[in-house]
Amino acid sequence: MNGAQSLIRTLVDAGVDVCFSNPGTSEMHFVAALDSVPEMRGVLALFEGVVTGAADGYARVAGKPAATLLHLGPGLGNGLANLHNARRGHVPVVNVIGDHATYHKKYDAPLESDIEAIAGSLNGWVRRSGNSADVGADAAFAVAAAQEAPGKVATLILPADVSWGDGGVAVKPMPPRAPQTVTDTTVKAVAEVLRTGEPVALLVGGPACREPGLRAVSRIATATGAKPFVETFPARLERGAGLPTIERLAYLAEQVQWQLEGIKHVIVAGTKPPVSFFAYPGKASDLVPEGAQVHTLAELDQDVVAALEALADEVASDVNPVLQEPARPALPTGALTVQNWVEVIGALLPEGAIISDEANTSGLLLPGATAGASRHDVLTLTGGAIGQGLPVAVGAAIAAPDRPVIALQADGSALYTISALWTMARENLNVTTVILNNHAYAILRMELQRVGAEASGPKAKDLLDLARPDIDFVKIAEGMGVSATRATTAEELAEQFRNALNEPGPHLIDAAVPPLL
Amino acid sequence: MNGAQSLIRTLVDAGVDVCFSNPGTSEMHFVAALDSVPEMRGVLALFEGVVTGAADGYARVAGKPAATLLHLGPGLGNGLANLHNARRGHVPVVNVIGDHATYHKKYDAPLESDIEAIAGSLNGWVRRSGNSADVGADAAFAVAAAQEAPGKVATLILPADVSWGDGGVAVKPMPPRAPQTVTDTTVKAVAEVLRTGEPVALLVGGPACREPGLRAVSRIATATGAKPFVETFPARLERGAGLPTIERLAYLAEQVQWQLEGIKHVIVAGTKPPVSFFAYPGKASDLVPEGAQVHTLAELDQDVVAALEALADEVASDVNPVLQEPARPALPTGALTVQNWVEVIGALLPEGAIISDEANTSGLLLPGATAGASRHDVLTLTGGAIGQGLPVAVGAAIAAPDRPVIALQADGSALYTISALWTMARENLNVTTVILNNHAYAILRMELQRVGAEASGPKAKDLLDLARPDIDFVKIAEGMGVSATRATTAEELAEQFRNALNEPGPHLIDAAVPPLL
Repeated sequence: MNGAQSLIRTLVDAGVDVCFSNPGTSEMHFVAALDSVPEMRGVLALFEGVVTGAADGYARVAGKPAATLLHLGPGLGNGLANLHNARRGHVPVVNVIGDHATYHKKYDAPLESDIEAIAGSLNGWVRRSGNSADVGADAAFAVAAAQEAPGKVATLILPADVSWGDGGVAVKPMPPRAPQTVTDTTVKAVAEVLRTGEPVALLVGGPACREPGLRAVSRIATATGAKPFVETFPARLERGAGLPTIERLAYLAEQVQWQLEGIKHVIVAGTKPPVSFFAYPGKASDLVPEGAQVHTLAELDQDVVAALEALADEVASDVNPVLQEPARPALPTGALTVQNWVEVIGALLPEGAIISDEANTSGLLLPGATAGASRHDVLTLTGGAIGQGLPVAVGAAIAAPDRPVIALQADGSALYTISALWTMARENLNVTTVILNNHAYAILRMELQRVGAEASGPKAKDLLDLARPDIDFVKIAEGMGVSATRATTAEELAEQFRNALNEPGPHLIDAAVPPLL
Repeated sequence: MNGAQSLIRTLVDAGVDVCFSNPGTSEMHFVAALDSVPEMRGVLALFEGVVTGAADGYARVAGKPAATLLHLGPGLGNGLANLHNARRGHVPVVNVIGDHATYHKKYDAPLESDIEAIAGSLNGWVRRSGNSADVGADAAFAVAAAQEAPGKVATLILPADVSWGDGGVAVKPMPPRAPQTVTDTTVKAVAEVLRTGEPVALLVGGPACREPGLRAVSRIATATGAKPFVETFPARLERGAGLPTIERLAYLAEQVQWQLEGIKHVIVAGTKPPVSFFAYPGKASDLVPEGAQVHTLAELDQDVVAALEALADEVASDVNPVLQEPARPALPTGALTVQNWVEVIGALLPEGAIISDEANTSGLLLPGATAGASRHDVLTLTGGAIGQGLPVAVGAAIAAPDRPVIALQADGSALYTISALWTMARENLNVTTVILNNHAYAILRMELQRVGAEASGPKAKDLLDLARPDIDFVKIAEGMGVSATRATTAEELAEQFRNALNEPGPHLIDAAVPPLL
């Protein structure tokens, strides 16, 4: 067994049986070894940002990491933005980065690169395998490190000769370290805050965004009057009829200040106190209302859901959660608008859907229109690095082949990782992509005003304009093997969305939704 | 004047008057400031790999750096692969990376990222501007650092509040440090090597790949019998009728060993002794023939061309260079092959063309077919990080709007930075792109065999196959606003190539060239 074979065998034994790949020469023995471990599925992407975003989406849905296969520093660089998003969402990912053979590095060949520095920027786990006999153990460590609460990016650097060398040993999985339990003292102290009668906000994130956590949050809020919020960009938020609907903290600082107005205590669990996404001249970065106290119920590496359930039992022992009633918007008519396209989605969202949401400004009204739809998951842009939506949809569809995946995708952001469409076609994934094509970096038009740069002239405005030339996503999708249509009215969108959901495989709808501003 | 305005004014005063941009919120004041400095041209790209590759291509042709505008760590990550190529080609680039406001960083907002670690991996120049009054001076340093021989990537990190803050001061350009002169002693010592009568190879790179250097090399080779070679991947190689034709060192180690067979002395100038691009089991990494001595005439930070001219004056004072006679292949006919498509290019290559060459395996026969064509420049894949070809063509066309730019582009590599086509359309650049569409990572099929992984099975082979589904570059180009056609025969390619050159603006030809293997 060579190093690569022991690596793949170890990954599979630890439950990591999908490898999103964009290999090069230094990874050829890993590629060759795929055939020796039948359980490992290799999924090819044409760009590393698709590889890493797909691994992120896969883990959010599968609840376990996928592996990536990347080519030296440049390959890791291309995948870095979506690894940033995974890191920010505390999503486990196991990177395998091929490198030159150990003895080859000193020659400083053209692809020599500082992989450790780039991987180190992710503040996760990084190790370089030193010889073939150790690769199995290194891989077992990597999987455990990735899964350690709250989830992180683990990077294993695999020199080519370590990969091709003999003496590989497959290693049994190592159990990841369990999350720490929140003490009873902490739970009781937070309960006291809730009993003060003062205005309290309860802000939860991470694993609390799924059913058990949300039920506990709803019970606490119902019993105590605390205002509950989910973090702005949850990695995976369960919602829809039959689940508690908990409002997300807004993206815009102004809106957060309004959401938290008058609050005297902010209790956080599985997330951090609210801060502004960006700084703006003369505006606050810290969004905790002035004079309010912050109380931490559970840190990210603790058992957040158990802490919320313990708190609910303490303050709401006989209170049930408030569950969302089924409610859908009527199917709208007329030219597409920022309002009516989300009504189409809300009206037609299928049972068990997974939404990969990178609709950005076009999606501002989406949560309201889908709250009472069938139960679904929403995967959001956790780290703010755009170009995540389509790759995450790829990964989600591979993790849950029987569920409909819906990518709601802003036009500007789509172009960063557009070749995800090709992987959707290749793997025949049930992904329906709706491009919100407003021909602008609309969010930047808004931000240009918000940062106080009002006096901007034609050159500035031109840099935020995607209409010169217009981008035709129907042609791009067809060029990558995905069938596609264009919708300009709500009726067309509804018909095309229904058809896309009814036919297996990927589809794209280029929706002419005008800009919000 | 705010920080951003002083930065742009300083850049322009130092000759940096093009900024390839993919901005985000933290860069909005820089964007707004563009209108206050009319000389600065902002060029929008839809992905950071296009931004950085365009800056690379621009500098290779303009002989001075462009600026880039990138958004925090994820934006730099997306641009890293082509910065790697620039670094490897010793091409000057001035990055401006927006960051959170200084006071905002402690809040660890979602886009907080370790920009220094990522930029540091480039082994160039990195500085974080601390306040608005210093930005101008920092920018002047950055431009000088980028241009210091042999050229490097300089990265200036610009916090948002430093950008928007008042008190900016435009600073006059700093002269970059001049390259060191090679001593007469060194020149004379190398001349002695050439006089031994033993077999000598003369390997040159960097600035020696342009006319003055090549003429000196040809004189030396003609006078002494030394075998002259240009480095494998020059940033800019001048060639064609009227110039010396100097063979490039091959990519494949086996071919290099054949090129250098029997050589006893390797003289290097402006490049390093030959090494294998990758390591292969049982094969040498160091490609200097066993027992041969290496002699360095000029290091990369020295005046390479002056050293070669001094050496030529020493050993070939009365010898003229051998100049290439005009010679073009006949226009071929029949279905496209790896042989005949390069003959079409050689037959029709226009005067003063700039070739951005990322044809990879499909381009193996290109140098022979174009050696006697009109004088032209070739820009090659300096660092081996694919996805460079189309962005470099963008930058070259902006640097030389009156010259025809021809991007010869492998299909697999094209997908990494495909949105470069959109920038070509937006800026109406005279770029003719020929996609060599063989529906495979053909080079990896070859490498899979070369690394010794012969026993590869169907899963391995599938990961190198781009034919499931086939990619239609005509549709993709049209989707991005570039007119496009498909060629399956040499006659069609010739007709379409002629037409593309005759019409202004960008064109793409999807050429069905079968794989080499």
